[in-house]
Amino acid sequence: MELLPGERIDQLRSGAVQIIQSAEVFAFSLDAVLLSAFAQVKANSRVVDLAAGNGAVGLFVAEQTRNQVTLVELQPRLADMASRSVTLNQLTNVNVVTADLADTAQFVQKDTVDVVTCNPPYFKVSDQSVKNPNEHLALARHELTTDFETVCRVSAQLLKYQGKLFLVHRPDRLQELLSTLMQNGLAPKRIRFVHPKADREANMVLIEAIKAGKPDGIRILPPVVVYQADGTYTQEVAHLLYG
Amino acid sequence: MELLPGERIDQLRSGAVQIIQSAEVFAFSLDAVLLSAFAQVKANSRVVDLAAGNGAVGLFVAEQTRNQVTLVELQPRLADMASRSVTLNQLTNVNVVTADLADTAQFVQKDTVDVVTCNPPYFKVSDQSVKNPNEHLALARHELTTDFETVCRVSAQLLKYQGKLFLVHRPDRLQELLSTLMQNGLAPKRIRFVHPKADREANMVLIEAIKAGKPDGIRILPPVVVYQADGTYTQEVAHLLYG
Repeated sequence: MELLPGERIDQLRSGAVQIIQSAEVFAFSLDAVLLSAFAQVKANSRVVDLAAGNGAVGLFVAEQTRNQVTLVELQPRLADMASRSVTLNQLTNVNVVTADLADTAQFVQKDTVDVVTCNPPYFKVSDQSVKNPNEHLALARHELTTDFETVCRVSAQLLKYQGKLFLVHRPDRLQELLSTLMQNGLAPKRIRFVHPKADREANMVLIEAIKAGKPDGIRILPPVVVYQADGTYTQEVAHLLYG
Repeated sequence: MELLPGERIDQLRSGAVQIIQSAEVFAFSLDAVLLSAFAQVKANSRVVDLAAGNGAVGLFVAEQTRNQVTLVELQPRLADMASRSVTLNQLTNVNVVTADLADTAQFVQKDTVDVVTCNPPYFKVSDQSVKNPNEHLALARHELTTDFETVCRVSAQLLKYQGKLFLVHRPDRLQELLSTLMQNGLAPKRIRFVHPKADREANMVLIEAIKAGKPDGIRILPPVVVYQADGTYTQEVAHLLYG
C-alpha cells in the first residue's frame, strides 16, 4: 500500500482493522471508535456512513455485516484515504463515494438502508467560533458544508421503516439534536453520554434514533467513562482500542 | 405536634429537618432529596415549590434562604401535612397554599421569583397506564390534574429574568421535557442523570433551566449513582440522606 507524505497506518484491536491516517489532514479519534461500538449492525444490515472522513466508522462497522457499506465523504483527499484503507483491509462489501451527503439519495435508493452512522462536524459556524486554519480539519469540525438538519433529513430519506441512525455529537447541543431528530421523523431511543472521567462533565453523546419510532421511550444507558482516576483507560475503552 | 392516623415523623440529615410522612397518603422519596440538593438556592432567593406534596423539597430548600418560600399543593390533605411540618420545624419563612399550581400567579407576583422547584407527576394519563387506586398517590404520580406544559408555563410566569427552574422527572420523556422547556422560554442548562447502580440505565433526571437563557449551552454533569455494587448507598447519596 502506497502512502502519501505525512500518512501512516494505524492498527486497532490488535490489528483487526488497519486504517490510513494523517495528522495533517484528518485522523479519526475516540469518537469514531465509540460510535462504531455503539451502532447495532446485524449480519445482513445495509449500512451508510455519512461524513465518513478517512473511513474509520465504516471500516469498523464493515466487519459486522455481509451487506453493502457505503461511505459518503465530501473531501476527495479523505475519500481517497478511505478507499485505500478499504483495499488495505481487503473489504469487498465497502464502497466510498465522494459527494455532498445531501445528495446521497442520488446514489443510494431511498427507504432501503437498515443503519446510518454519522460522526458529523460538531461546531456551528458563527463569527465567534475559532475555525481551524487547516481547511481539511475545519471542514471536519465545523458545519461549513453540512449541518445537523441535513444529516437528519438525509438519514430519514435513506432509512427503511424502523431503520436506525447512530450518531455521536456534543452534549451542549442536546436539546437541538433531539428536537431536530423528532422533526425529521427520527425518534431518539438510546442515549449514552461519554465522560472523560467519572467526576467530569460529559464531552460527547451517542444517540440512537429510529425512523417512525414512538416518542417518550428514551433510555439513558450507563455512561462511558474514558479514563480512570490515575489517567489510564478504563477497561471498557481499553478493550475497544486494543481488543 | 399532633399526628393523624397512619402518619409518622421522619428525620433527615441527622434530624436537621423533620417531616410528617404517611405511606397511605404520600411519602417523599429520594427524588425530593436529590432535587433539593441539585437546586441552587442563595441566601436571599425567593422560592416557589410547585406540586409540593407533603413539603419535602420546600422544607429542605427553606434552610438555604432567608427569603420567602411558597409551597403550592392541590390536595388539602397533603398541604395540611406540609403546613404542620413547617410548624414542626419552626420555619417562619415558609407558607403553604392549597391551590392548583396553574393559578399560582394569582397569589405570587409574576416575574419576582428567583427559584422554582418542582417534583411533578411523572406519568402521562393514557388508557394503558396503570393508575394507583389510592387517589392521593394517583394524583401525585399521574398527570391527572396538571401536566408538564403547565409546570413550564407557570414557572416562566413566576420567574424573574434569568431565574432558574429546578425539576426532577423521568428520562424516557427527555426529548419532550427539553422541547417544552424551550417552547416556554426556559433554556435547559444543567442536566444530571440518576442511575440506581453504575451499570444500570438512568431512572431519574434532574434538570436546571434558565428563563430567557441561551440555547446550546447544556452541561451534562457527572451522574448520580444511588447504590454501590453491594447494595449500600454510595457516599454521595448517604451524605444527602444522613448528613
